[in-house]
Order: sequence, then structure tokens, then C-alpha cells
Amino acid sequence: MSSVPSSVARRITLLTDFGTADGYVAAMKGVIAAIAPGAVVDDAAHDIPAGDVRSASWALGAYWHLYPAGTVHVAVVDPGVGSDRRAIAVEVDSRIIIAPDNGIVSAVLLAASPSMIVEIRNPQMMRDPVSATFHGRDVFAPAAAHAARGVSLDQLGPLIVDPVTLSATELARAGDSVIGAVVHVDRFGNLITDIPAGGAGGGVLELPGGIRAAVLGTYSDAESGALVALTGSRGTLEVAVRDGSAADVVGAGRGSPVVFFPADPAPDI
Amino acid sequence: MSSVPSSVARRITLLTDFGTADGYVAAMKGVIAAIAPGAVVDDAAHDIPAGDVRSASWALGAYWHLYPAGTVHVAVVDPGVGSDRRAIAVEVDSRIIIAPDNGIVSAVLLAASPSMIVEIRNPQMMRDPVSATFHGRDVFAPAAAHAARGVSLDQLGPLIVDPVTLSATELARAGDSVIGAVVHVDRFGNLITDIPAGGAGGGVLELPGGIRAAVLGTYSDAESGALVALTGSRGTLEVAVRDGSAADVVGAGRGSPVVFFPADPAPDI
Amino acid sequence: MSSVPSSVARRITLLTDFGTADGYVAAMKGVIAAIAPGAVVDDAAHDIPAGDVRSASWALGAYWHLYPAGTVHVAVVDPGVGSDRRAIAVEVDSRIIIAPDNGIVSAVLLAASPSMIVEIRNPQMMRDPVSATFHGRDVFAPAAAHAARGVSLDQLGPLIVDPVTLSATELARAGDSVIGAVVHVDRFGNLITDIPAGGAGGGVLELPGGIRAAVLGTYSDAESGALVALTGSRGTLEVAVRDGSAADVVGAGRGSPVVFFPADPAPDI
Repeated sequence: MSSVPSSVARRITLLTDFGTADGYVAAMKGVIAAIAPGAVVDDAAHDIPAGDVRSASWALGAYWHLYPAGTVHVAVVDPGVGSDRRAIAVEVDSRIIIAPDNGIVSAVLLAASPSMIVEIRNPQMMRDPVSATFHGRDVFAPAAAHAARGVSLDQLGPLIVDPVTLSATELARAGDSVIGAVVHVDRFGNLITDIPAGGAGGGVLELPGGIRAAVLGTYSDAESGALVALTGSRGTLEVAVRDGSAADVVGAGRGSPVVFFPADPAPDI
Repeated sequence: MSSVPSSVARRITLLTDFGTADGYVAAMKGVIAAIAPGAVVDDAAHDIPAGDVRSASWALGAYWHLYPAGTVHVAVVDPGVGSDRRAIAVEVDSRIIIAPDNGIVSAVLLAASPSMIVEIRNPQMMRDPVSATFHGRDVFAPAAAHAARGVSLDQLGPLIVDPVTLSATELARAGDSVIGAVVHVDRFGNLITDIPAGGAGGGVLELPGGIRAAVLGTYSDAESGALVALTGSRGTLEVAVRDGSAADVVGAGRGSPVVFFPADPAPDI
Repeated sequence: MSSVPSSVARRITLLTDFGTADGYVAAMKGVIAAIAPGAVVDDAAHDIPAGDVRSASWALGAYWHLYPAGTVHVAVVDPGVGSDRRAIAVEVDSRIIIAPDNGIVSAVLLAASPSMIVEIRNPQMMRDPVSATFHGRDVFAPAAAHAARGVSLDQLGPLIVDPVTLSATELARAGDSVIGAVVHVDRFGNLITDIPAGGAGGGVLELPGGIRAAVLGTYSDAESGALVALTGSRGTLEVAVRDGSAADVVGAGRGSPVVFFPADPAPDI
């Protein structure tokens, strides 16, 4: 990143669980505007369920790589704020992630190898004093603003090699079937699994309670109110109810087991 | 639009029903930033009720014309994603609307005549591959980004002349009274009707259950907790409860019939 | 502000209780984009509880001073819209606040002395006509856009000296203890008080129902589910439940009395 002159401010995205009723997000934006007035700041997601690091990791995984190289992504879902959990900056595939070291970067690190990870420790890159409850404002926003101005990661703090990652579910096989799990429930109540759709044409997904959903091409291949499984936007199988919530209909949620019985040979996992 | 040089990136607004808990909105923004890094992207509304095309049309109608000429408005409430519903780009009053062809542009087309409508079909203006579930990211965001860079609409796909429009309620008269309907319930519980306020001074609005609200000048002409009808921000009559929700008090919603008994001669409809 | 040339557009932030389901926020942004196309517009907070001026004041207090000098902050929680309540523009510490005169600037004015306050009265700085229900679009957005372009406040309207301020709770002492109140409940259910933490090390905060919380250093000094009091991000004591909502656990809310029994000599209030 050292090739970026310090006068060039880049794009920063913000993901938090702060909601937009308290002014916390704006406090982060104000800090950024004061340090890097030319940076473009995008709201990514502020309604992550409070303290839900796993949801935050999933959401960050949806967009970090779609932004151009040089983008600085801030992700602050931070139930351990004020504890001795580290603050980190990760350079991965020419983007930078600024976040608490609590596993929030897990989906990113599953998708790509980081080129550098540092612990944010340099007090000159923080507000003074640093509060015990709001590192979004006092640590992560200033670090992102400095990074967006071209400060190299090694100026934020020392290298580390052991970022916290969340346990990932493991896929298993039983004959031709693949056993996985629901890894995210989105706003529409879609049950998103970790089972790669691969070239799967057809087949059946079995959900808790013995509920089965045929794997079809699109939502609209199902009748209104009917369950349908299909290839989701991240390449894995997901379960939806047309004009409804699969999570409500099935009574399933994150962690619920699912089994995929392919019609064709099972996808290569 | 051909007079805009391709190096100039313009303003893009985003309306969706994606909420901000899943990273879907940010995925669209990332795609735009990669194609049109100089475009200014405004969040318009992301909490449209899931799949509610009619609410989306109403919301889009609130702002599309207030933005300057050249603005590209993206509106993605898309329960038919992945089906054979078309994706369209509409040039109207020097703005461009990019949306699924499901009626979401109805309020715009009621207000102004389009100068051009195309079906978005050119795969070079889309991500590759296009998922079955997320055309916001794969079709609408790239089309908007290209349009914001000055790509002319006819490069997106062929002309069409028959966009889908939602059925509109028809006003009726009975003597001096005007019979209309609630067309939107907003965040405050205000019941917004399709009855033009015109020069109406006074009069009474009758709601379901025989509930009547006097047409007054402002919210504050009513007592706290009392029903009041007045001229809303789009020039039609609406019903409010000061410091409360008219929708809750009246027990009415979109589609509920209303009758306006003017004090003066009925407005010209 | 007269030193800012009129061709320079500055940063504008928007706080409202409009939510993002109706297009109202986008209407304000469109008006701003038409008047001050070069202004950078930041969403500050749009999910302020409907009509809750006190929450809005608290939220505005969280960020107004963190933005750089020259920023124009718009704050529209406006239950009296259309009444004879004034619209005002406040210059304070080189920032400008544009808001209804209903007390929403109270937290700002508690923190800093205004250098100028005007009533927004100049119709040339408003949309024409001005609706009775949506001054965010018709009065506040255009005033902010003009101010961001360098229009001086005295062009908006005449000086005033008596802005509305909300009653503030008064701290009281009883021996070494300090009696205060909950002034805000945030998205996490944290109970934020008006008692300055000062150099307080230790001590106990007593809440309604005789519930007591030890004053600790960070959230994570408490066990999951346990109450903890600590120094919040604005320098006052607040009560949290690790991985939970203190508001729910304690059954307290804004206005609830709290008593701080310091371990050290009481902080200087």
C-alpha cells in the first residue's frame, strides 16, 4: 500500500451493530471526516444483531471483495470492547479490514489469504483518551482514516500471525448425500447453508423435522408459500419460501443441520 | 444522455428492501464503486417491507424528481428475481430509473412521461455469471454504474414500450363528496390517501368504521391523541394522530376506502 | 463563515426520525443535491424514535463536535411541524446546526456557546410552496444546502437569542453520594446517566428497585448476564449487562433515578 501517496484519500466502508438511533455511527464518520476529509465513506450495514460476530462475518463476506482494491473496510461488532481482545488491521487481496480481533474477519480469511496482519497499538493512530466502551470511535475509525490516507499498516502496530477465527462447520458425506448446516438467516428469512451448489441440477434438501425442499432454479419456480431450495448469491444452497420466510415456516435457524440429496453426482466439495 | 462524457460519473441512489443486516446493500455499492468509482451513491431507502413493490413505488415517487437531472435511481424490490420478469431502464424527465419491470416505476410514470424505456439485456453490462437470487448485485448495480458513466440506455438493451404498471385506485364522486383510498401508511402511521387536497379549506374525511376526521391546517391544530386530516407532503389528503399512529387508532391500512366531504366546492380532480 | 467562498460545498449530516421505508430522507437528499451538488451528505441517524426530541438531542450530542469545522448538521425530529414553532440555524464552535426550535439542540448548547442563532425565515432559502407536514424537505434541507454553499446565516433570517432548550435533570448530593438520572437508553439497552464519572475508581451505582451495580473498568470485567456500571463514551456513568440489555434487566428507562456511591472522594461536579 506504500505506493499510495498520503494526499490521496480512498473509500472506507462501515459495518456495525450500532443501529441508527444513537449517533454512534455518526461519531465514527465525524472522526473519519476530521482525519481524512477526502475519503468517501459508505455505510455497509448497521443493523447487525447486537454482538453477533458471526452474522457480521457473514455480511462482511458478502461485499469486501466487490469493492475496488485499496478500499478500507471497517467492521465493528465488538462485545469484548475494553477487554484485552486485540484490534487488528488485515491486508488481504489489496483491501484492508479494520476490526476487533474476535473472528469478524473469518469469512474474509476463508476466502483469501492475508498478506499482512497487524495489531493496532500505536496511540498516535487513536483518539486520546481511548474510552472503555467505544473503540469504534476511538480506535477503529481513526485507524481506518489514517489507512485511507495512505499510512502503511506497519505504522499502526506490530505484525501478528494468529488472528481469531470462528469455528466453521464441516461438511460431511453419507453416501451421495452431503451434510451441512444453516450458516445465516437473512432479512427475508432465507436459510443459507454452507453446502456448495456446484453444478447441482435438481436434488432435495432435507431440513429439521424431516421437511424437504426440492432444489429448483429460481424462487419463482415455486408456488407462493411453498418451500424451495436453490443456489444462493454466494454459490451455496439456500432455502426460501416464495413470498414468505423459510426460517418461520421451517422453524430453523443458524446451526440447524441440513442434508443435500443430489439428483446428479454430488458436487465436488 | 449522450452529451455526458464517459469520464464523468454522476449520482446514483439506491432503494431496496434489503435492510442493513446482511451486506446485500454493500455488495451493490461495491459493484458500483468498482465500475464507476467517481459516482456519488446515496442511500434512498432500504427498509421497504420485503417484497412490497407498491410501497417501493410510493417511496420512489417521493424523491426521484427532486434530484438533479442526470441522476440514476436504482430501485430493487424484486420478489420475481430469477423469473422471466424483465429488468428495465427508464429515462424520464432527464433522470434514469433502473429497476425490475414489476410496477415499481408506476408512481414515476404516473407523474411524467418516459422518453425512453429499454430492457436490460446486454450481458456486457452485467456481472458474469448472473445469480438466480441477487440481480441487485449482478444486473441493476452494474447497469446503474454504466449509466452513471454515460453509457447510453440503448447500449443496455432493446427498446420496450409496455412497462408493467400497478393498478391505481380510481377516484369516484358521489354528489360533492370524493371517494378514494389509503395508498400508503408511513413510518409515523399516517394514512396517506389519493384524494387531491386541491384548494380544499375545511371539510371532513370519513374513514372505515364511520370514523371522521376534520380537515385542518397542521398536525398541531389537533389535540394530542386526536385524529386530524390535512394536506400531506405530496398534495393529497392524509390522516394523522398527533403524537400517535392514525393507522393504529383507525385500524385502517393501504386500500382502506375514504370519503372526503368538502366544505367548499370539491377540488378539481 | 463569510471566509468560505460560495463555490465551495461542504459536508452536511442528516439526523431524522423518518426511518428508511418511505423515501422522506431521500427527498431531503435530492433537494440538497439540486442546490449544493458538491456537498458531501452523511447519514447520521434516521431511526430516532418518532417524535422523540430528547433522544435526538442526545444523539446529535454524540457527534456534532467530532466533525470538522464548517460541517452543517441537520436534525429534524419535528412533532410540531406546521405549527408556529420556529426553524433555526445555530452557529456553534464553527459548526452549523439546522433544526426546528424545539429543544433538539439542547445537548449542543449545553456543551458549547453559540456564536449566532437565526430564525430561518427567508422564503428564498426555502422550497415554494412550503408544505404543512414536511419541513425537512421544504425548509431544513434547502437551508442546509445554502449554508453548505457558503450563504451566511444572517441571510437565512433574523437573529434570535432565546432558543428552546429541554429541561435538564439536576444532579444532587447526599453526603458523598450523587443523585442523578438515566438520560438515554441506547440500542444495546445500556442505561446512560448524567453522573460524571470523573476520576471515579470503583464505587456502586444504585438503580430503581434497590438494584446495585459495581463500577468496573470495562464490560468484560463482568460475567455474562451480570450488571456492570462503567464510564461511558461521553464521560458519564452508564449501566450495562454483558451480552444483554440493562434496560430489560433493571426495568429502568429514561428519567429513572440513580444514586452513585463513590469508593473514592466524589467526583467534582
